[in-house]
Amino acid sequence: MRKLGVQEIEDIALGAAFLGAGGGGDPYVGKLVALGAVKECGEVTLLSPDEVPDDALVVPVAMMGAPTVLAEKGIGGKEYQTLFKMVSQFFGKEIYAFMPIEAGGVNSMLPIAASARLGLPLVDADGMGRAFPELQMVTFTMGGMSASPMALTDEKGNSVIFETITNKWTEELARAVTMSCGGAVSVSLYPMTGAQLKEYAVRDIVTRSQRLGEAIRTVKNSTEQSPEEQFLEAAEGYRLFKGKIADVLRETRDGFNFGKVLLEGIGECRGKNACVEFQNENLAAYVEGEIVATTPDLICLVDTETFVPVTTDALKYGKRVLAVGLKCFEKWRSKEGIELVGPRYFGCDTDYIPLEERCKGGIYHV
Amino acid sequence: MRKLGVQEIEDIALGAAFLGAGGGGDPYVGKLVALGAVKECGEVTLLSPDEVPDDALVVPVAMMGAPTVLAEKGIGGKEYQTLFKMVSQFFGKEIYAFMPIEAGGVNSMLPIAASARLGLPLVDADGMGRAFPELQMVTFTMGGMSASPMALTDEKGNSVIFETITNKWTEELARAVTMSCGGAVSVSLYPMTGAQLKEYAVRDIVTRSQRLGEAIRTVKNSTEQSPEEQFLEAAEGYRLFKGKIADVLRETRDGFNFGKVLLEGIGECRGKNACVEFQNENLAAYVEGEIVATTPDLICLVDTETFVPVTTDALKYGKRVLAVGLKCFEKWRSKEGIELVGPRYFGCDTDYIPLEERCKGGIYHV
Repeated sequence: MRKLGVQEIEDIALGAAFLGAGGGGDPYVGKLVALGAVKECGEVTLLSPDEVPDDALVVPVAMMGAPTVLAEKGIGGKEYQTLFKMVSQFFGKEIYAFMPIEAGGVNSMLPIAASARLGLPLVDADGMGRAFPELQMVTFTMGGMSASPMALTDEKGNSVIFETITNKWTEELARAVTMSCGGAVSVSLYPMTGAQLKEYAVRDIVTRSQRLGEAIRTVKNSTEQSPEEQFLEAAEGYRLFKGKIADVLRETRDGFNFGKVLLEGIGECRGKNACVEFQNENLAAYVEGEIVATTPDLICLVDTETFVPVTTDALKYGKRVLAVGLKCFEKWRSKEGIELVGPRYFGCDTDYIPLEERCKGGIYHV
Repeated sequence: MRKLGVQEIEDIALGAAFLGAGGGGDPYVGKLVALGAVKECGEVTLLSPDEVPDDALVVPVAMMGAPTVLAEKGIGGKEYQTLFKMVSQFFGKEIYAFMPIEAGGVNSMLPIAASARLGLPLVDADGMGRAFPELQMVTFTMGGMSASPMALTDEKGNSVIFETITNKWTEELARAVTMSCGGAVSVSLYPMTGAQLKEYAVRDIVTRSQRLGEAIRTVKNSTEQSPEEQFLEAAEGYRLFKGKIADVLRETRDGFNFGKVLLEGIGECRGKNACVEFQNENLAAYVEGEIVATTPDLICLVDTETFVPVTTDALKYGKRVLAVGLKCFEKWRSKEGIELVGPRYFGCDTDYIPLEERCKGGIYHV
């Protein structure tokens, strides 16, 4: 158990945006929401999963929608009270703690705001260890858990509860309502017991985000290691490519941001080209037409000087980025995991090959 | 209090399809659902609103979606149990009785099926006295009542509860989910107390449907009156036009059936032409380009020989129909009523003029 205050939130926002793998929303917007709540209502208590009673009701909260919309459409402030009331009424039992569903600039921050506003603890765990675009894409699905009852509320005060036969149906119906509500809403889903949390969640994700954020903040010039080497070592990252953004193709469709970003090599990558495809999150990275990384491994773009993560909605012509690969949570590499979030699910016609295999013998690893 | 059995249901289906004003679904499909439930579970008790306690929870049930889909997509059978459970759990109080929300071949029948399956009474009242395409178009809206909490369930077992800030938002969100669920779902909405029911509902609509159905069934040749005159007198209807269907233009869009039907005159209308525009229900009727009737008054097409109602999804080339106008429920003619369901709401650029004014001096009235 420890407390999360202003500095912790600054670091978590930065590190979580990196783990968001291009998605999860703008860390600046997310940070403002969390900082506002903590300044108004006090610091938040972070619990390790083992500190949560087995029969406690734990509820992930998040925003659902296209990150480009998240950055423009405000959060009303009453959403967490509404979600708390809806879910507690549904179960006839009060929520014990909130948790994030995914890592990301926004979705790591909102549960902190919810915890601050309701005076409830936050659990140091999530359901992805990164961000993914669809709501059935969580480790809980592999545990046979249901996304529903899922509660949804918008900033205007509309609220909806879904109980569905499969998690794909939750996604389908909640996505339709999200689009009708203007493309971004607050949700709670995968309500679970403390016992389920301990068995299926990705642990220590808040702490990991915080350490990554600290690392980005404190990277400095030194004689032994370049800043880039320091950063990659702290992140345990693979150097996939370094380049200047030559073009960004985007399409907002069915409530998602689809697109790809084209890179022209700089530094030791000079003369080469690369491309990263995304659906909210980065899905696959190609160098000279050859795949170097795919989901479920993480593909993260960061500024070449500051190492600040660049989300897919912040990509623009001329920006210089370092593409970094990170190994995903181990359970995503199981047969079930690959079916749920592997490259073929996203329409990328290749088998999943772990990042470290694909990068073997290349210039990639530090 | 009286019982509804097989013959009553046959007549109600026919009469309610007439009051559906082209919408409300296929009476054959609706009838099968109601008859199946009554044969399996026994007759249904029909209560007058005055027989319902003031504090009782009364819930309209209906299908939502495009009538063309209703005719093809089955009803699973468990929907009413699901709706009963969801709504009773939400209010912490059991539903006392069901009622229809609108008159129509399907939506007058499903509440009978729900009542039979749950062993609950049905109330002899609805919220329109006809059918309308959008869910805020009920007398309850004029009473300031809310459509939500609205419960929705599909035949697969998915279920959703909506609580919204306005009835337009209920329509918007429920319509989005309806489309995702395949275009037709079972819903309960405008849950109300017995006291609200007595104040705002359109009374005796089940009984009126039954009498109209009886009249259609028993029309016969006689020396004093033609069958058409008998029928129009029983229905208190205005004869708007008699013609052969020359063309039907249709479009299924945003979960509605839009279109218009073109008629060529026969009998005393020979040489003239007419047209009826619809959005699920018939909205406006034109003879030789001149408006003869608009919403909220009813425009009903019936077979020229049998007087069986022809719903908008059953319109086809060559069919001979009599277009009949009926005066709407008096409260629809108020300023509020016209704003909600008058011609301008549906994009028809004309003031509302009551049917009997428009038809004055014409060949129209019997």
